[in-house]
Amino acid sequence: MDLKGYLSDKRAIINQALKEVLPEPVGPAAKVIESMGYSLFAGGKRLRPILCMAGAEVVGGSATAVIPVACAIELIHTYSLIHDDLPLMDDDDLRRGKPTNHKVFGDALALLAGDGLLTEAFNMMTSVKLSEALPPHLIIRVIGLIARSAGFQGMVGGQVVDIQTERQKINLSTLEFIHACKTGALITASVASGAILGGGSESDIKTITSYGKRIGQAFQIADDILDVEGDFNDLGKATGSDERKGKNTYPKLVGLGGSKKLQKKLVADAIKTLASFDHRADPLRALALYIIERKK
Amino acid sequence: MDLKGYLSDKRAIINQALKEVLPEPVGPAAKVIESMGYSLFAGGKRLRPILCMAGAEVVGGSATAVIPVACAIELIHTYSLIHDDLPLMDDDDLRRGKPTNHKVFGDALALLAGDGLLTEAFNMMTSVKLSEALPPHLIIRVIGLIARSAGFQGMVGGQVVDIQTERQKINLSTLEFIHACKTGALITASVASGAILGGGSESDIKTITSYGKRIGQAFQIADDILDVEGDFNDLGKATGSDERKGKNTYPKLVGLGGSKKLQKKLVADAIKTLASFDHRADPLRALALYIIERKK
Repeated sequence: MDLKGYLSDKRAIINQALKEVLPEPVGPAAKVIESMGYSLFAGGKRLRPILCMAGAEVVGGSATAVIPVACAIELIHTYSLIHDDLPLMDDDDLRRGKPTNHKVFGDALALLAGDGLLTEAFNMMTSVKLSEALPPHLIIRVIGLIARSAGFQGMVGGQVVDIQTERQKINLSTLEFIHACKTGALITASVASGAILGGGSESDIKTITSYGKRIGQAFQIADDILDVEGDFNDLGKATGSDERKGKNTYPKLVGLGGSKKLQKKLVADAIKTLASFDHRADPLRALALYIIERKK
Repeated sequence: MDLKGYLSDKRAIINQALKEVLPEPVGPAAKVIESMGYSLFAGGKRLRPILCMAGAEVVGGSATAVIPVACAIELIHTYSLIHDDLPLMDDDDLRRGKPTNHKVFGDALALLAGDGLLTEAFNMMTSVKLSEALPPHLIIRVIGLIARSAGFQGMVGGQVVDIQTERQKINLSTLEFIHACKTGALITASVASGAILGGGSESDIKTITSYGKRIGQAFQIADDILDVEGDFNDLGKATGSDERKGKNTYPKLVGLGGSKKLQKKLVADAIKTLASFDHRADPLRALALYIIERKK
């Protein structure tokens, strides 16, 4: 299949929908709307929303109907990057080739822009448009899934352990915990929420969740590898930052060769997981490969 | 009515329910669970959850059924305090007589504990218990209302303007905007979501929302006055902090006398708003008075 065309079509749809999320930055709180928009349109790949739409399609659901949820997940992803870049966290100056949010708007506004994006994500999932298109009990189920994947049992939990274990020697199972929570949980929730809202059976949702966990782990390993081998111009930020910060990564724990072998195995397993699906799973198959072949 | 008994009964119910929100702090992410719990059980008045329960009762609904939402609102309130106290925001060392979250757990963990509480609030509102007790479309409506009241159109928006106008001269309408967003929106959403989930008519919900806006504004004026006239031992923090930070407050803009007059008028108006309700509105009437008579 033509993944490049698929990605660019879906990305255009998501970018268009995201443009409607925020009002014009006018009024007393204009600055925070500007700050939220700055990071939301800083050149993200829109991988999570695309996974959500593909997750709906694979079970025969409508990719269009899930757009508000797909966008909400992108807002949550964006909030996590803003908070993660703050001086009190990873203290990063560049993201996707642009100054990070707090470098442009200051720390307080960056904090609040992150809070605003996270909160607005949940508002979006209650939109009239979504409630008219999909059964309310499925919407509630998906809000819960996404909240847990982003919260202390998921992304927030992973960030905590990531920060706490900097410059410490950890074992592979702790690293797997960090990666599964910090990155894997929201990626898994993206594709699983698509499958839930698309009307997938419990067995379909289980299969898609297994697929999500595998590509989620592969995604973070690919990120770790890019931080060693990537190109500044592709990444939009300096490589070697994990090393400088004393972060625990796959290359550090199992070497570059071991990391590449592992990510390939995960992607192969993810594709195998989809064996019972027909051609409608082709985007998910192609996305699994894209995740480890991407340059940024 | 015996407001003291009412408050202490409801507070006990909420505290018991909140105890079940967080798991035991074990496992790799134990520290963030501990940090979330530290602030959640730091002696809050539980005013917002009580308003939510009273909002359900006034329209003849079940106060027990709305407990997960009442607790979720308290989590959102607690997150806002943790982020607000961070050095990059108000930089406060004491809250309710105890060291603030970041003073105990460090800035990064405090940030993440706030993020975790905000996110978990939305997970709580999708609980099976709630979905079994109440119609799903009302739950979705309330999740949206609470998200908007906490987000850039509400609390976050108010915080932004509050921070940006420090040490600046502003007019009364900007101060009203800050107060309505920063404090009023979530207080209004607390009582309105109770009325929605309690099965109130659209007219009831409108009335309760008007009541909420008035007590929300009165609450913030009372806070401003307490910061001038309050007692350290009651408040658990030093007074005069608004003055030191150059915050815009009602006492600063209209004087102490003007502020007291205004809060009394707001409470009288709030009580008048409830005229069409019977004795079931007595708790809301008493709560309106409590809001300006409290010592902390």
